[in-house]
Amino acid sequence: MESKPSKPSMTCLADFEDHAYQILPRNALDYYRSGADHMQTLKDNRRAYQRYRISPKMLVDVSKRDLSTRIMGKRVEFPIGIAPTAMQRMAHPDGECASARAAQELGTIFIMSTLSTSSIEEVAQAAPQATKWFQLYIYKDREVTKKLVLRAEKAGFKALVLTVDAPYFGRRLADVRNQFELPSHLRMANFVGLGDLETKAGQSGGGSGINNYVASLFDQSLSWQDVAWLKSFSQLPIILKGILRADDALTGIQYGASAIIVSNHGARQLDGVLATIDVLSSIKEAVGDRCELYLDGGVTQGTDVLKALALGAKMVFLGRPVIWGLAHSGQSGVEQTLRLIKGELDSAMALSGCTTLKSVYQDLVICPKSLM
Amino acid sequence: MESKPSKPSMTCLADFEDHAYQILPRNALDYYRSGADHMQTLKDNRRAYQRYRISPKMLVDVSKRDLSTRIMGKRVEFPIGIAPTAMQRMAHPDGECASARAAQELGTIFIMSTLSTSSIEEVAQAAPQATKWFQLYIYKDREVTKKLVLRAEKAGFKALVLTVDAPYFGRRLADVRNQFELPSHLRMANFVGLGDLETKAGQSGGGSGINNYVASLFDQSLSWQDVAWLKSFSQLPIILKGILRADDALTGIQYGASAIIVSNHGARQLDGVLATIDVLSSIKEAVGDRCELYLDGGVTQGTDVLKALALGAKMVFLGRPVIWGLAHSGQSGVEQTLRLIKGELDSAMALSGCTTLKSVYQDLVICPKSLM
Amino acid sequence: MESKPSKPSMTCLADFEDHAYQILPRNALDYYRSGADHMQTLKDNRRAYQRYRISPKMLVDVSKRDLSTRIMGKRVEFPIGIAPTAMQRMAHPDGECASARAAQELGTIFIMSTLSTSSIEEVAQAAPQATKWFQLYIYKDREVTKKLVLRAEKAGFKALVLTVDAPYFGRRLADVRNQFELPSHLRMANFVGLGDLETKAGQSGGGSGINNYVASLFDQSLSWQDVAWLKSFSQLPIILKGILRADDALTGIQYGASAIIVSNHGARQLDGVLATIDVLSSIKEAVGDRCELYLDGGVTQGTDVLKALALGAKMVFLGRPVIWGLAHSGQSGVEQTLRLIKGELDSAMALSGCTTLKSVYQDLVICPKSLM
Amino acid sequence: MESKPSKPSMTCLADFEDHAYQILPRNALDYYRSGADHMQTLKDNRRAYQRYRISPKMLVDVSKRDLSTRIMGKRVEFPIGIAPTAMQRMAHPDGECASARAAQELGTIFIMSTLSTSSIEEVAQAAPQATKWFQLYIYKDREVTKKLVLRAEKAGFKALVLTVDAPYFGRRLADVRNQFELPSHLRMANFVGLGDLETKAGQSGGGSGINNYVASLFDQSLSWQDVAWLKSFSQLPIILKGILRADDALTGIQYGASAIIVSNHGARQLDGVLATIDVLSSIKEAVGDRCELYLDGGVTQGTDVLKALALGAKMVFLGRPVIWGLAHSGQSGVEQTLRLIKGELDSAMALSGCTTLKSVYQDLVICPKSLM
Ligand SMILES: Cc1cc2nc3c(=O)[nH]c(=O)nc-3n(C[C@H](O)[C@H](O)[C@H](O)COP(=O)(O)O)c2cc1C
Ligand SMILES: Cc1cc2nc3c(=O)[nH]c(=O)nc-3n(C[C@H](O)[C@H](O)[C@H](O)COP(=O)(O)O)c2cc1C
Ligand SMILES: Cc1cc2nc3c(=O)[nH]c(=O)nc-3n(C[C@H](O)[C@H](O)[C@H](O)COP(=O)(O)O)c2cc1C
Ligand SMILES: Cc1cc2nc3c(=O)[nH]c(=O)nc-3n(C[C@H](O)[C@H](O)[C@H](O)COP(=O)(O)O)c2cc1C
Repeated sequence: MESKPSKPSMTCLADFEDHAYQILPRNALDYYRSGADHMQTLKDNRRAYQRYRISPKMLVDVSKRDLSTRIMGKRVEFPIGIAPTAMQRMAHPDGECASARAAQELGTIFIMSTLSTSSIEEVAQAAPQATKWFQLYIYKDREVTKKLVLRAEKAGFKALVLTVDAPYFGRRLADVRNQFELPSHLRMANFVGLGDLETKAGQSGGGSGINNYVASLFDQSLSWQDVAWLKSFSQLPIILKGILRADDALTGIQYGASAIIVSNHGARQLDGVLATIDVLSSIKEAVGDRCELYLDGGVTQGTDVLKALALGAKMVFLGRPVIWGLAHSGQSGVEQTLRLIKGELDSAMALSGCTTLKSVYQDLVICPKSLM
Repeated sequence: MESKPSKPSMTCLADFEDHAYQILPRNALDYYRSGADHMQTLKDNRRAYQRYRISPKMLVDVSKRDLSTRIMGKRVEFPIGIAPTAMQRMAHPDGECASARAAQELGTIFIMSTLSTSSIEEVAQAAPQATKWFQLYIYKDREVTKKLVLRAEKAGFKALVLTVDAPYFGRRLADVRNQFELPSHLRMANFVGLGDLETKAGQSGGGSGINNYVASLFDQSLSWQDVAWLKSFSQLPIILKGILRADDALTGIQYGASAIIVSNHGARQLDGVLATIDVLSSIKEAVGDRCELYLDGGVTQGTDVLKALALGAKMVFLGRPVIWGLAHSGQSGVEQTLRLIKGELDSAMALSGCTTLKSVYQDLVICPKSLM
Repeated sequence: MESKPSKPSMTCLADFEDHAYQILPRNALDYYRSGADHMQTLKDNRRAYQRYRISPKMLVDVSKRDLSTRIMGKRVEFPIGIAPTAMQRMAHPDGECASARAAQELGTIFIMSTLSTSSIEEVAQAAPQATKWFQLYIYKDREVTKKLVLRAEKAGFKALVLTVDAPYFGRRLADVRNQFELPSHLRMANFVGLGDLETKAGQSGGGSGINNYVASLFDQSLSWQDVAWLKSFSQLPIILKGILRADDALTGIQYGASAIIVSNHGARQLDGVLATIDVLSSIKEAVGDRCELYLDGGVTQGTDVLKALALGAKMVFLGRPVIWGLAHSGQSGVEQTLRLIKGELDSAMALSGCTTLKSVYQDLVICPKSLM
Repeated sequence: MESKPSKPSMTCLADFEDHAYQILPRNALDYYRSGADHMQTLKDNRRAYQRYRISPKMLVDVSKRDLSTRIMGKRVEFPIGIAPTAMQRMAHPDGECASARAAQELGTIFIMSTLSTSSIEEVAQAAPQATKWFQLYIYKDREVTKKLVLRAEKAGFKALVLTVDAPYFGRRLADVRNQFELPSHLRMANFVGLGDLETKAGQSGGGSGINNYVASLFDQSLSWQDVAWLKSFSQLPIILKGILRADDALTGIQYGASAIIVSNHGARQLDGVLATIDVLSSIKEAVGDRCELYLDGGVTQGTDVLKALALGAKMVFLGRPVIWGLAHSGQSGVEQTLRLIKGELDSAMALSGCTTLKSVYQDLVICPKSLM
């Protein structure tokens, strides 16, 4: 009996999630994990994947595999990126900078939230080689909004991810109960010196501080016209995040969107909406190859990614799993998380006879006959 | 760290329900919460909503929203009213008067039960400006019944809600086990001085006092002819409450009903009947615009209302949730309850791209393929 | 506060079942309640009813209701009879005689098992006015079998119920584990003096005594020819019990069966077979009015009966529920059980607009789209 | 009361499984029982059978039954054989030899794993009369692979079972957590003296020893060409094990496969693939009678076998159940296990009107309408 190396710690993304549940303070944990209202869609986002079964091909030579792809014209090492999530410094002091560096290290995309606790410039400096996209919320104050876009453009961000599902925020009951506030040592780093825009998330007003922030500052009149408005002053390609209907996807293409992220905001907006994987194929059918399609929501293992690829997504993004990795050990935890799921995807491809993303065949996935 | 305002108490209707379960005496609580027999339909009334998923529209300007509508020709501020429930003074000393005042305050409809513990005149006086409808049970004693109708008409009630699903009462096992009786300090306030009609619910006779009351006094020969009979002496429009089949709805229109409430009496009559939301669209399909359609049963959150609207209801009514609000703090509790769910509906509309009730689009809801 | 009458004891059939679970000795209880193998069908027999939902008619005058019907040409007060179950004296000293007397008292049918612990003649004497049918197992010893039939005929039994699903017995694991034996003070009362035929169920041989009995004495070559054989010497109409397929039902009619009991032997034979309610309508469709159709299996409440009637059964039979009633208080317990479920059926009919069994309309029941 | 014989110990295969869970060391138990990743398919392999319901025929003379069949031209006493499972000596010192002797004793097929802890020659000697097949993994070292095949051929094995679903191994999380290693007193007995090929499974390297073994030694370029390669030097018929798609089955026939085992490797490779019983009928439909079809995965009772037969399998194989039998009492335990399930199949056939495997009719099984 030789002596064994130390216990392998993390075998799947759920291990990171479990760990985060133990170490994060209640306020932050609840903010991160919650879905809207009674969280039916939150559960469904994940559980829905189980309804799609894999029908794998055998006896394909899979000794050489390539997971890379081109996204918006740029090479990505594997089709799993980082979704924009707000206020990452609550999970780890390095916050967004750590996540961006992990994306750079692994060769994937980092989407930075408007509501970051690190500024555009800080993130750009931390991960200059990473492919970075900027997620945009449109403020009532259009000048502020415009400046934000121009700063991102200048800092080397390669696309604007316009979040279309959040004219204001869904009700996350735990945040109301907790009277959630952004901890006082943190701030909305993109709005330093802009008064409420910088500080208001730190004031719960007896409810959820972040909801108050959004309700008072975001522009609820958000509409298709704003896509045109953005294009009027920014060169960046526009990606619409939060589309759940085929007709909306088609309208998006008309308004000049370069890509669409099928998303329900991690089930944080309207509880009861469809799981993202359940709408993907109908949207793919409608848009065909007229724009790139990505997906986020409930992705926690390699086979989830594989199913999304087979159903029409070119890439997927991770929201909460990245936060759990970050909470574990900053940049290193995010890297471990990404490597784990990348490895799982690699394995799932090998075991279903796929050697490249292009070779992922459509009938790899058997779709359920009924929605429930 | 600034000092926080006191804990926000109630974040959703379930919070009121939980509270009522803690404070109400067993006999009353069981009476209020029970469904018939093994309560399959009681669970299904609620759970069924989860099978209908929302497919929301994005990038509609939702900065201005209007939840008002016209019901039976009269403006209502939002499409959520108060269903008739018996004996509300068991929940709070102010009983029906408090509920009616809450409806008045918020600009919605109060339906008063025949089996109220406050009289028609008391309620009329308590909430003169409220839109009040009178729910009618037909007694064997037709003179008594007729007088009831005329009193309601005189007191300013605007419609008769004829309950058609209760020729006699379903078996609610807890009431039998509890030998439920109306507490001796309360009475059937619409029948003061009428002997059994006033007092019999206070005598369990070893079973359920209310079932005995109904079995001995209600007219089990209730039929379509009675709709004609009512129209023969009352000017009030007639609303049929308790229809679950499209053919019955059509017959109702022939007999001159002005509107229909799709209802299974809160699952208190025949266990095993379909959930109300499951029958709504087939009834809507049959009646089209020939009469207004409302629904009650299992509505406990804003998205439930939104789904009912999308499937053809012009308005919904709340039974138990109003009782839980009443038990919490009388009129104020009912108001809080109504405001909460109104707010949830408002939010659900905003997040699905609806600015008015008319703009609620039909394919907002994805219907399940199978019943189960 | 007036003083209350004593607690109403039994509000539904489940109350009797719970009671029996507390008082019966383990060996007997396990014998009665078990289904074959892993008891999937046992659960499904009951649960399946929940998948059929009721769509009730309103505003039918239901003040007068008649539950009586004609079965095999004879009036029965309500369409719920007693299925044949073996060895009833283990549940109560009065055994089959008590059950038969209860059937007589209420005006319904008692089916007596071949494997009774009271003899044909005892039962005939105990309940001379009851409509009694004799359930037949065919023994290898055909002379014995023939004599049994002739004794039943002579004793006034009105039909032969040939059990077709038991050439030998299914594996009920608890009986094997318990090494079940008929208690030594009881015997197979129809076979007194016939050696093994009387006593062998009292010998477990390390397994299940009743299975050994059946395996060594029943004729496993049971086939359609035996229907012809029975008709060759008995005038009694023959009812086939245990049919689950439409084609078998049609063959049965060809061989001269007068009626069919759709049954899976209370899920005691082959685990994994369909629930009886799930096959009823397809069999009804095949046989039409060419023979009467009955059903047993999992019926425990009035709505179960109503659903079976709507789907094509003229009558249903209760197996275990009668045993639980018997265990409670002999004849009186069986009567209470029958009265309870009769009352539930009566109520279910009233609340769905049915005044007679003939008026039970076909679309009262909404069938599930999928089997599961 | 006579004295009873000792408790009958084992009444169903689950009893053996429960027993094994109590006596096996953790490392071995986890290795045996685990499925890949989150083990959805592991549960589904079993649960899927419950979705298929039996529609049994009555009144067929079943007094004489014959469960024998011809598999690859050779008589087998009943259609249930032993699937190849690695490293059986961890369950019992007699390992593969005991299993092979049990198969010989009962007249069924033993498939020996490449990764056995007894050698080809040991097994051949232990059970010379058994029908033995050799399961083959293809190593990077093709000479080693070839020699293995030739040894098996020489030792009297009658077919090559080429496992096609394992170019490398799926992730079984428990093995990673346990840092599973083949116990040091055991070895890969077919590779004695071949260095890593003999010993590497005994080195976890901080992960799963068996996965490391496979990853470094198996040929991941495994493809259809290898079927041709095998046929180029071996006379043995080739059976493809691990096919889950109809198109792959057809390709297999083109490449000269004699039979196909529909299998997902006991859910140990790619979690989320379809349950084997769910794909069987579509594959049968495609291949018709052009090759024999077998199945493994989740078979634990007689009705599972019957369903597989009805849906197109000529035979089924048991993986884990044989291991639990082996762990119980070596050869005797495996024999008991096989006898139990053979008896269950016999009983299921009798109770559904089948007297031979040929008489198993296709509509014996009602297929679920939806996958879930
Ligand atoms: C804690 C948290 C914060 C989020 N913040 C933002 C945000 O600022 N902007 C945005 O567009 N989406 C935001 N999202 C949504 C994510 O971009 C993404 O759609 C979602 O998390 C994907 O689901 P998953 O968490 O199941 O992976 C947030 C999600 C979470 C969980
Ligand atoms: C405690 C209680 C008493 C009720 N009393 C009456 C009544 O007197 N008349 C009537 O028409 N409906 C009555 N109902 C039915 C309600 O009007 C309504 O149909 C039902 O409560 C709606 O379901 P919900 O409780 O899930 O909202 C009663 C319901 C409850 C729960
Ligand atoms: C304890 C017990 C004994 C039974 N004995 C017989 C019998 O002797 N002959 C027979 O034809 N059926 C017998 N059956 C089956 C019943 O007649 C009937 O088909 C079944 O019990 C109906 O299902 P239920 O118990 O769910 O009502 C027996 C059932 C049970 C539960
Ligand atoms: C512990 C274990 C080891 C196995 N080893 C092998 C193997 O060496 N070669 C192979 O082809 N299949 C192997 N299998 C898969 C089995 O041959 C078979 O496909 C599977 O066990 C059938 O599912 P069941 O365990 O539910 O009966 C193994 C399965 C188990 C559980």
